[in-house]
Amino acid sequence: MIVILRENPDQQQLNHLTNWLKEQDISVHRTEGVHQTILGLVGDTSHVDIDRIRQMSIVESVKRVQEPFKNANRKFHPLDTEIRVGSALIGDGSLTVIAGPCSVESEEQIITIAESVKKSGAKLLRGGAFKPRTSPYAFQGLRDEGLKLLLEAKKVTGLPVVSEIMDLSHLDLFADVDVIQVGARNMQNFELLKQLGKSNKPILLKRGLANTYWELLMSAEYILASGNEKVILCERGIRTFETYVRNTLDITAIPALKTLSHLPVVIDPSHAAGVSTFVLPLSMAAVAAGADGLIIEVHNDPPHALCDGLQSLTMQEFDKTMNRLIPLKATCGKIY
Amino acid sequence: MIVILRENPDQQQLNHLTNWLKEQDISVHRTEGVHQTILGLVGDTSHVDIDRIRQMSIVESVKRVQEPFKNANRKFHPLDTEIRVGSALIGDGSLTVIAGPCSVESEEQIITIAESVKKSGAKLLRGGAFKPRTSPYAFQGLRDEGLKLLLEAKKVTGLPVVSEIMDLSHLDLFADVDVIQVGARNMQNFELLKQLGKSNKPILLKRGLANTYWELLMSAEYILASGNEKVILCERGIRTFETYVRNTLDITAIPALKTLSHLPVVIDPSHAAGVSTFVLPLSMAAVAAGADGLIIEVHNDPPHALCDGLQSLTMQEFDKTMNRLIPLKATCGKIY
Amino acid sequence: MIVILRENPDQQQLNHLTNWLKEQDISVHRTEGVHQTILGLVGDTSHVDIDRIRQMSIVESVKRVQEPFKNANRKFHPLDTEIRVGSALIGDGSLTVIAGPCSVESEEQIITIAESVKKSGAKLLRGGAFKPRTSPYAFQGLRDEGLKLLLEAKKVTGLPVVSEIMDLSHLDLFADVDVIQVGARNMQNFELLKQLGKSNKPILLKRGLANTYWELLMSAEYILASGNEKVILCERGIRTFETYVRNTLDITAIPALKTLSHLPVVIDPSHAAGVSTFVLPLSMAAVAAGADGLIIEVHNDPPHALCDGLQSLTMQEFDKTMNRLIPLKATCGKIY
Amino acid sequence: MIVILRENPDQQQLNHLTNWLKEQDISVHRTEGVHQTILGLVGDTSHVDIDRIRQMSIVESVKRVQEPFKNANRKFHPLDTEIRVGSALIGDGSLTVIAGPCSVESEEQIITIAESVKKSGAKLLRGGAFKPRTSPYAFQGLRDEGLKLLLEAKKVTGLPVVSEIMDLSHLDLFADVDVIQVGARNMQNFELLKQLGKSNKPILLKRGLANTYWELLMSAEYILASGNEKVILCERGIRTFETYVRNTLDITAIPALKTLSHLPVVIDPSHAAGVSTFVLPLSMAAVAAGADGLIIEVHNDPPHALCDGLQSLTMQEFDKTMNRLIPLKATCGKIY
Repeated sequence: MIVILRENPDQQQLNHLTNWLKEQDISVHRTEGVHQTILGLVGDTSHVDIDRIRQMSIVESVKRVQEPFKNANRKFHPLDTEIRVGSALIGDGSLTVIAGPCSVESEEQIITIAESVKKSGAKLLRGGAFKPRTSPYAFQGLRDEGLKLLLEAKKVTGLPVVSEIMDLSHLDLFADVDVIQVGARNMQNFELLKQLGKSNKPILLKRGLANTYWELLMSAEYILASGNEKVILCERGIRTFETYVRNTLDITAIPALKTLSHLPVVIDPSHAAGVSTFVLPLSMAAVAAGADGLIIEVHNDPPHALCDGLQSLTMQEFDKTMNRLIPLKATCGKIY
Repeated sequence: MIVILRENPDQQQLNHLTNWLKEQDISVHRTEGVHQTILGLVGDTSHVDIDRIRQMSIVESVKRVQEPFKNANRKFHPLDTEIRVGSALIGDGSLTVIAGPCSVESEEQIITIAESVKKSGAKLLRGGAFKPRTSPYAFQGLRDEGLKLLLEAKKVTGLPVVSEIMDLSHLDLFADVDVIQVGARNMQNFELLKQLGKSNKPILLKRGLANTYWELLMSAEYILASGNEKVILCERGIRTFETYVRNTLDITAIPALKTLSHLPVVIDPSHAAGVSTFVLPLSMAAVAAGADGLIIEVHNDPPHALCDGLQSLTMQEFDKTMNRLIPLKATCGKIY
Repeated sequence: MIVILRENPDQQQLNHLTNWLKEQDISVHRTEGVHQTILGLVGDTSHVDIDRIRQMSIVESVKRVQEPFKNANRKFHPLDTEIRVGSALIGDGSLTVIAGPCSVESEEQIITIAESVKKSGAKLLRGGAFKPRTSPYAFQGLRDEGLKLLLEAKKVTGLPVVSEIMDLSHLDLFADVDVIQVGARNMQNFELLKQLGKSNKPILLKRGLANTYWELLMSAEYILASGNEKVILCERGIRTFETYVRNTLDITAIPALKTLSHLPVVIDPSHAAGVSTFVLPLSMAAVAAGADGLIIEVHNDPPHALCDGLQSLTMQEFDKTMNRLIPLKATCGKIY
Repeated sequence: MIVILRENPDQQQLNHLTNWLKEQDISVHRTEGVHQTILGLVGDTSHVDIDRIRQMSIVESVKRVQEPFKNANRKFHPLDTEIRVGSALIGDGSLTVIAGPCSVESEEQIITIAESVKKSGAKLLRGGAFKPRTSPYAFQGLRDEGLKLLLEAKKVTGLPVVSEIMDLSHLDLFADVDVIQVGARNMQNFELLKQLGKSNKPILLKRGLANTYWELLMSAEYILASGNEKVILCERGIRTFETYVRNTLDITAIPALKTLSHLPVVIDPSHAAGVSTFVLPLSMAAVAAGADGLIIEVHNDPPHALCDGLQSLTMQEFDKTMNRLIPLKATCGKIY
């Protein structure tokens, strides 16, 4: 961390700052310029509250050199984290595909889809029970009942299941869910993250629509710092000025997050694109850029889906997509 | 709502769509072009699930003409909503200033600040107890204890208090808080919004960092539709490409939200600017553009604040700011 | 185009609008709602000035159904445009790689790089002579002299060359340049676009940092409408809130532009990433998503490059990159 | 400037860097940490090419402490720049209003408007002759003829005139224009900026839709460094994710640019809002935040304007607006 001081800093305040840093095991090196004094802070600065320094009247600005996250940081954990879920090992260089409908709608629907995507090569089944919808008038998911049906599909097919949690009070309902998803709108719901950090389940943490890589990793840090090491990062499109597609898939998130962190990275092409015709090219791009997995929406009857039908593949389309992705992955191999 | 159909739409699907709309009391008018058929939907379309239409294979695109919110919509509620809190009437054309520290830190601190801002003309006291922090290593607020101290300051000064809720499970602790704040990161925490809709307390709903006016009003709609009519909208800066300031204050939110909705609009210049020196000009701008209120961070000792000291005014600076804002408001008068 | 009228529109203005549209061969279909009248405009609306309608006092809003570009529109030109440059055919489903340094620096430098990238499989040589730099104090390129050296490298290697034009007054200097590049900052330099439309050279048109697909295609339309059909679209990263990388590569631009237009799409991973280590994964992603080409910065000595060395591959790295891209392209085949 | 080195930097490269900096009169101070070496660069770093350092293999990252512009920097020019145009002195703490139509359309039109806005208190007349339009099919301005008519209105009313230049080749036509405007799309047309730096006319430099404060000031620096000190900065709305308004007016640009620079700051509420009803509140906000001027679109017949009628005030509305702004300015006084 670099602290740039204003001209002629008050000596007492400067001592106060230096001592406060030393108490945190940070040593302070000083460079005197004509107009400016620069302090170089050396040590583990990830726990230092940068705002506390920034607001001092002797300080002009503070710049981080080191990332503010430690548990999620590849520098301190050079080896890839690998997370076992059912027959899948996420993060070992292979490709794990998670597939299923936006919403669980009925027992028949979820079982039909589960069986089909399993046959096509999906390793996990996704299905929404609690649905975060912009409008209070839109379908809100089958909730408890939806989770029960999803678990029924798990029993029938043997596929582990992923579902989104929307509130801490629902946590007990997720006892048999294999991977708990935190949605983009809850990426900074810190009370939720802290509790999930006490769980031993893998957490699929989606990047918020306007959150940076550092912020995503700080949210992962909440979970990791509370004791749960099984975090899967998920990029699902960010909000930009472009309105032709629902969101802008940030493909650079793959090499960036792989560089910054040891956690696995999964891509959600369905929510980014918002239309089913773009799911194939975006999935291809994600695999070629080295994603550890994909989470793809598949529906048995997209035009009548209760939610997000526009972006859902049919089961036939999903099968064709897998037939493109498997040889692609074989050609690409392990990238990071 | 306008539905543009693809060429040669399947007649059965078209009948299905038309009937589904009629069941929702929407009448359908049809325009035939050479290459396109356009359906004009007439009636209350705010409850129509636009995604359900968009995903039909006969549909090329759907465009909303009418806003998707009804309770928050000025078209259906032309008169301004006025919300009484203590001696303040928010939304009646006057200016209500809410002031106080980012975080409650001690009894002495909160009472000192409360007495001072009251004297300067603030009508409500703000103070954070539960603090949403990007880093798990940053100060997280005094939590329950902080709320107690805030209520102590309320008792001493008579100022009504505003504090942020971070999780539904804390709701009971807010029984004596006058205005419950929903922070930017929780603007789309829909489970929380639904529960607050069952409360009878005013809700200060902050716009998310990357949420549109429509989305903010849809979140307000969650509260209103659940029965609580006392929603105060708050603009606190949005995330843009500009990094010189923490966030970009969207001053146009004032005329835009006043046009779209009947709810009061409050501006938070402190979080937008991120530095105390910009709080005065941004406050001046907000008042001149017709804001119903301001929420300003004030601290007795900003350089030693446990949180956000950089953007906090001292009590003296706040007093000077008020001395500029009061004559400004008198000159501007009621704008909307 | 859909025009939504205000309640009780003035009949005379309405006739005025209808007649003005009929003069442009647009027929008008009317839908009467309880509160609203909707006009459906049928015909070729790409030439209709939408602002002229929007500003009428009887009009509440106008929404385009059809894209505002015609020459660039796939709907009217369903077949892919293929552009021949030297031995490359850009847009026929193959992959064309353009490579070379950010700036031409010396004869030895440009010839060394040209020979090396040719051997590795590049089909065109890039090299900047006129450099748009944010700072007036940064290296501005060798200008005329740089172009001469680039053409020397063309003579020696036989590779066709691509270089950026910064002002109309330099046009004569580009007589022997094979492809003229319009940089991101000049994407809406309409006087320049009009003149390039009178040229018969292929134009590599880079998307502006904050321009939409429609705007890029409208800029292409300026060139096409002036008579030059050889436009190559180039995505080079957009500006978002994320600051970890220089720009955010918008990979969805590939399927989106391929859907909207018949023009070839080339990706510039170097400028998007800003660092050389991300060039490989982003190139892989672009090829897998179906890009017609790549434009990659390569330098013989990146640490001493006069410009953009950080993002330049060494000649060895470029060779390795090509060795990954060629089998990848073979596996992916033609995507659109 | 702070340079963070990688672990175990090559000593020869480090000497190379240090010597290269010393040649530019920059002294280098070194801080050794356990894992990192930090160099503090002291001296005038505005001319140092940061990319040249960043790309060295021994360098991990570089961070600017000092702004990269010098002529435009308030630190080196603490006093406000004041620019005289006719009876207006822009930048002295007073409010200068520039008004007129988007496009000059006819002699009668421009003279009618000029006389009216003069009477209402405008000090300069604006009028577009060369119009940058997204679509090649939209009205492109009267060009040479438009400039002649604008100068005719100057002769009749005595108001100095402002008009936008779109290409260097038109420069001679602007000989009698008082203030030359550089539009948002040309903010980084560096060849144009260099030439305008050789002119002695005031330049109204509009901020690009997605350009930062630093970039705007670097573009101003191009003009200033070429010898022309009369630059007026103009904020006209930036591009964000919000689509309800055309652009998001960045009101913080006023205090930010006033802090960073000594140049006057003018606000364009018309282009930001895109609708005439928002022009008053945004103008009020700009004045209260301390803008040196406003540039407002006024038309004698907005519904029939050839361009941007939607955002144009009528002459009556402009008169009413001035009647609100004058007392507001009197109350606010000099802010910076």
